[in-house]
Amino acid sequence: MQPFRVAIAGLGTVGAETARILLTDTEMLSARAGRPIELKAVSARDKTRDRGVDLDGVDWVDDAATLAARDDVDCVLELIGGSEGVAYDLVLDSVKSGKSVVTANKALIAHHGSEIAKACEENKVGLGFEAAVAGGIPIIKSLREGLVGNHVTRVYGILNGTCNYIMSVMRETGRPFDDVLADAQRLGYAEADPSFDVDGIDAAHKLAILSAIAFGHHVDFDNVHVEGVRHVSPLDITFAEELGYRIKLLGIAEESDAGVQQRVHPCMVKADTPIGQVEDVFNAVVAEGSAVGTTLSYGRGAGAGPTASAVIADVMDLAAGRRVPVFGLDSSKLSPARTAPIASLTGCYYLRLMVIDRPGVLADVTAVFRDHEVSIEAMIQRARNPEEAVPLVLTTHETSETAIKASFEELARLDCVLEEPRQIRIEDF
Amino acid sequence: MQPFRVAIAGLGTVGAETARILLTDTEMLSARAGRPIELKAVSARDKTRDRGVDLDGVDWVDDAATLAARDDVDCVLELIGGSEGVAYDLVLDSVKSGKSVVTANKALIAHHGSEIAKACEENKVGLGFEAAVAGGIPIIKSLREGLVGNHVTRVYGILNGTCNYIMSVMRETGRPFDDVLADAQRLGYAEADPSFDVDGIDAAHKLAILSAIAFGHHVDFDNVHVEGVRHVSPLDITFAEELGYRIKLLGIAEESDAGVQQRVHPCMVKADTPIGQVEDVFNAVVAEGSAVGTTLSYGRGAGAGPTASAVIADVMDLAAGRRVPVFGLDSSKLSPARTAPIASLTGCYYLRLMVIDRPGVLADVTAVFRDHEVSIEAMIQRARNPEEAVPLVLTTHETSETAIKASFEELARLDCVLEEPRQIRIEDF
Repeated sequence: MQPFRVAIAGLGTVGAETARILLTDTEMLSARAGRPIELKAVSARDKTRDRGVDLDGVDWVDDAATLAARDDVDCVLELIGGSEGVAYDLVLDSVKSGKSVVTANKALIAHHGSEIAKACEENKVGLGFEAAVAGGIPIIKSLREGLVGNHVTRVYGILNGTCNYIMSVMRETGRPFDDVLADAQRLGYAEADPSFDVDGIDAAHKLAILSAIAFGHHVDFDNVHVEGVRHVSPLDITFAEELGYRIKLLGIAEESDAGVQQRVHPCMVKADTPIGQVEDVFNAVVAEGSAVGTTLSYGRGAGAGPTASAVIADVMDLAAGRRVPVFGLDSSKLSPARTAPIASLTGCYYLRLMVIDRPGVLADVTAVFRDHEVSIEAMIQRARNPEEAVPLVLTTHETSETAIKASFEELARLDCVLEEPRQIRIEDF
Repeated sequence: MQPFRVAIAGLGTVGAETARILLTDTEMLSARAGRPIELKAVSARDKTRDRGVDLDGVDWVDDAATLAARDDVDCVLELIGGSEGVAYDLVLDSVKSGKSVVTANKALIAHHGSEIAKACEENKVGLGFEAAVAGGIPIIKSLREGLVGNHVTRVYGILNGTCNYIMSVMRETGRPFDDVLADAQRLGYAEADPSFDVDGIDAAHKLAILSAIAFGHHVDFDNVHVEGVRHVSPLDITFAEELGYRIKLLGIAEESDAGVQQRVHPCMVKADTPIGQVEDVFNAVVAEGSAVGTTLSYGRGAGAGPTASAVIADVMDLAAGRRVPVFGLDSSKLSPARTAPIASLTGCYYLRLMVIDRPGVLADVTAVFRDHEVSIEAMIQRARNPEEAVPLVLTTHETSETAIKASFEELARLDCVLEEPRQIRIEDF
C-alpha cells in the first residue's frame, strides 16, 4: 500500500518526541496503520540544537510555510503553536493544498476552529487535534466518537496541569500561591510568564473546544467566562478541607435555560469524588451522556510523551482513512454559538470575607445577604483577634451569581469588611 | 448519501435500548454519521413483550439467522449473547455475506475472536465490540486507536461491576459475601446463577480481549488465570482497611519475562489511588503506555444505557466507514498466544491463616515461610482467644507464587492451622 508521508513543523519537546516515535517505532506503526508511515520532512528554527533524535535521512526545511506546498507529503503536523501567524497560515495553506493536518494547538482551534473546519470540508481533508485538549488522554476521540450516541448534558474537567499542581502543593504544604508558583517554574511545570496557565486562558481554550463538540455549536472562546487561581489563598484551602472539599480549577460546559454555560474558574468539589482525587499535574475530564451516564478519563495533560502519543494517534487515524468532522458535525450543521452569560448562573457558593473582629459585624454582614435573598447554609469564624482582621467564611444554599455580585458590592462599602470579598463556586457533581 | 441499514438480533434490555435510541435520535445520529441511519429489522423470541419502544415500521423477524442473508441490511447487531450457537452462527454468517457486525458479546470474542477477525478481513467488513468490555467506557477505542502510538506495558482494571459492588458493600457494612450477593441478586446487580460474575469468568473474557489488543497476540482466554471473590471474607476487608488497601477483583495483563501475564483475581490496591477509589458497580481500566504514561477510564460497565451507548458508537464508526483491525493488527500479524503461567508470577502477598491461639504457633508458622524463603514484611495478630481460632495475617516482601503455594501446602499440614490458608495479591501500582 502507498506510504503515508508526514512532515513536522516545529521541533520543540513535542515535535522532537513525535519525530523520535515515528522514526523508532516505524514498523509497529506501519503494521497498525496497515500501510508504511514515513517521516519525510521537518522544520524548525535552529538546525544545530541537539534534540536527542537522529534526523538523518529526513529532509530539513528552514521555512515551515513551504511544507504546505510539497507534493511528497500527505499530512502536516503543526507543532509550532500560537493562534496566529506561522501556525495559522501553515494549517490553512496545508488544508487548501489537500493535505490533512494534525495539530496540538489549542489556541488555534479555539480561535479559528470554525474557519479551519470549513476549509477541511471544502478540501475533503481530515484534521486531528487530540493533543490540543488534555494531552495524552484521548478525550476528543471519546467524546466525538465513543459517546456519539449520547446527548451530552455536561462536560467538565481539570484541563490545566500547572494549576492542578499548584493547588495540590498548596494543600499539602499550606504554602501561598506565589511561593508554589515560583517552585513550579523552577521545576518546569509553569512557564516564565505563567499567565496563560494560572489565569485560566489555557483551560478556556480547551473548554471551548470540548463544548463545541459536546453541544454541536460553533466554537466560542470569546464568551467563555474565565477566572484563574491567583486569588486562591491557603486560608481557602484550609476551609475547603474542613468542609470536605478540594479546590480545583475546572472548565465546565453545560446546557442551561440561558444557553450553554461555558466557564473556567476555581471550584470546590467533594474530596471523595473521582474528580476531587485528581492531584498534581494530572488532568481528568468527566463527560455526562444521556445513555452512558457519567464517564471520566484521566491521565497526563501535558509533556512530550503524552502529547506525542495524541499526535501519533491522529496521524494513524488519518493514515488509515478514518475521518470525523472537526466538531463532530459538518460545520453547516453546527448551531450558532449560544453561550449563556455568567450572570445567568445559579448555584452554591463559598464566600470568604476579611472582617474586623468586633461585636455586631456578623449582624451587618448577614443583613446584606438577607437583603439580596442569599440564603446562608453555614458560617465559620474560628479565629479570634479582637479589633483585628479575621476570616469569616460562609457557604450558601442555591443562589444566583447576580445576588452574590450585588452582595459583594454592598459588602465592600462596609467599614468592617477589610479586603475584597472572595467567592469560590461549590460544584456538587 | 446512501442510508446505513441496521438490524438488531436480540431485544433484551440492551437490544431494546439500542432500538429506542436508533428510532428516537435518528436525526442526531444521521447528522453525526453524515448519512441516514435506519433500523430495518429486529429479531427476538417473544414478539408480544412490551419493551417500551415502538417498533412499528421495523421489520420483525422470528428467526435471527435470516438477518445474515438480507440484502437490505448493511450491519447486524448481535445482542443475543453466548459464545456458541445462534450468536456464533449469526456473526460468522453475517460477516461471510459481507455485512459488518456489532456485538456486545464478550464470551464470543474471547473464545472465537481470532476466527471472527480472520473472517472479517477475508470479507472486508468491520467488527465492533466496544460494548463487550467495560460497557459504556470507550476503552476498546482508547486502547486500539487513542494509544496506538504506544507500546502498552500493562493494562488492568475493574471489569466486573457485580464483584465491585459486592466488595464495596462488604466494606461499608461488614457483612459477609453470601449475604451481600443475595442482596445484589434482589437488586438485579447479580444473576440468579452468579458464577459467571463472582467466579471471575466474565472479567476474564474481557481481560483476554484487552490483552490481545494491548500486546498484539491472538486472544487466549483458556490460559487466563482466574480466581473469583467468593473467598474474600469480612476479616480480609477489615485487615485491608487497616493496611491502607481496598480489595478489588482486577483483571491484569502485563508483559513479563515469561510471556504475557493474564490474570483475574482479588487484589489489594492502595485505597488512595484512582483505581482504589472506584466503588459500587462502576468499572475502570488503566492502560500504561510507553509515551502516554498512565491513563484511566471510568464509567458504568453494564446496564442498558451504557451498553447501548457503546453499541451505537460502533454502528456510527461503521456507518462512516471508519474501520480498525479487530485486535489492532491484521490477524496475520498477531503473535501466537504467549500467556505466562501463573507459577512464574512474583509479587507481594497478603496471607491470612486461622490458627489456634497458643504459644509457639507463630514460631511454627514463620519457620515454614523461612524454609521457603518467603520474607515477611508485617504481621498482625490482634484478636486473643486462648486455645481457640484466631486470624493471623502476614504481608510479604517480593516473593514468588510458587513459594507461597509450597508454603501453603506445608502450613496445611500443621495442627495449629485450622482452615485453608488464604492469599490476596498486593498490587502497588
